[in-house]
Amino acid sequence: MKTIKVYPLPTPLETEGLVVLVDILRATSTIVAALAEDAQLVKPVTSVEEALLYREKGYLIAGERGGLPPEGFDLGNSPREAYKMARAKVVLTTTNGTRALGFVKKAKAICAGSFLNLRAVASFARRFEEVLILCAGTEGELSLEDFLFAGKLALVLEEYVSQNDAAIVARKYAGHVEDISKEIFASHHARKLIKLGLEEDVAFCAQENIYDVVPILTPEGFVSLKGVAEE
Amino acid sequence: MKTIKVYPLPTPLETEGLVVLVDILRATSTIVAALAEDAQLVKPVTSVEEALLYREKGYLIAGERGGLPPEGFDLGNSPREAYKMARAKVVLTTTNGTRALGFVKKAKAICAGSFLNLRAVASFARRFEEVLILCAGTEGELSLEDFLFAGKLALVLEEYVSQNDAAIVARKYAGHVEDISKEIFASHHARKLIKLGLEEDVAFCAQENIYDVVPILTPEGFVSLKGVAEE
Repeated sequence: MKTIKVYPLPTPLETEGLVVLVDILRATSTIVAALAEDAQLVKPVTSVEEALLYREKGYLIAGERGGLPPEGFDLGNSPREAYKMARAKVVLTTTNGTRALGFVKKAKAICAGSFLNLRAVASFARRFEEVLILCAGTEGELSLEDFLFAGKLALVLEEYVSQNDAAIVARKYAGHVEDISKEIFASHHARKLIKLGLEEDVAFCAQENIYDVVPILTPEGFVSLKGVAEE
Repeated sequence: MKTIKVYPLPTPLETEGLVVLVDILRATSTIVAALAEDAQLVKPVTSVEEALLYREKGYLIAGERGGLPPEGFDLGNSPREAYKMARAKVVLTTTNGTRALGFVKKAKAICAGSFLNLRAVASFARRFEEVLILCAGTEGELSLEDFLFAGKLALVLEEYVSQNDAAIVARKYAGHVEDISKEIFASHHARKLIKLGLEEDVAFCAQENIYDVVPILTPEGFVSLKGVAEE
């Protein structure tokens, strides 16, 4: 039996299957866009200090605190700047998304999911018997946009049985959201980004299936698995 | 502006308003039923050992671990046994519900909510500008039945603005659940109780508005506020 579980907030996880990391606004959207724009890899780290150590190794330093790039960074956490990451090795630190990775205690594979590559992630996920969708949330609270993605992915993976209550709730919730962009714009996190002048980032992250890359976590960082959707 | 927030899992909370504690299966349903059946008070405690200390004070000892009453207890955690609590002082310890109370750092009032007294809770909640709905969850995971109650209560309190994403999601989810009992029976916790032979408890907890008491937390425990719905 193929099974799916949804975690609305970071929780210690173990699985023999796949973990899909979700931080729609904006970490996983940026990772997906970066690899789609031919970044070599995206290395997630938890602290600003650690990120800055990668400069002498020739990495581009990207990320945010409070939504904006910390001092000394080359780039923020915007998927619209991903074209600047072409051919680069990138180190990325964000408030919620990179932190959530620390909760994965065991998995056969970890990939990054976003609306931008939803269909590709679904195709990749079908290689696994168990799929866990780990939502980063925002500062310890459920994020609508992450939970909505979890539900939409679970709906595409229709042959997977809901194995926890959050999967049941996410599927039902997402099944009644027709306009993804409108729903995301109502979220707490979107409104915060809009106040920072980042409305176009929100609109960008709400696009569906514009990339077919699946970022897979390796010891060096996320690297691209391409063409999965065509399998 | 009147506002409402939903917490799908126990999280440290502070408010100048009301916290509605929710553990549908079964702690808050049992507390509501106990006070409706004229228990003097229901004192929530976190440990089995602490509960047993109340025997010499003349309390009835009630609660569960793994769904069943621990050794030496007078009663389990069943709202169907509430009639046995008439006129008694009751001490109650449960796995999730009583533990969740520890997360409330500050509140003007704390009450217990369940489907059994949903309308009464809504009437009482309208005395407060801010309403926080705290779901106990089940062993660290979102519980469908708690989140569904949160959404249904938020829908009744239609003049309250959703102040976090979980409130938006809970309202939309609950708005598309017509058969509350059927939905609850699909939950992880319900299936566990059914395996323990407690199917009738699940059915009992899924009843709507059969009581008009609102359990209010005082230093002595939850006591009854009656007739709120008629205000």
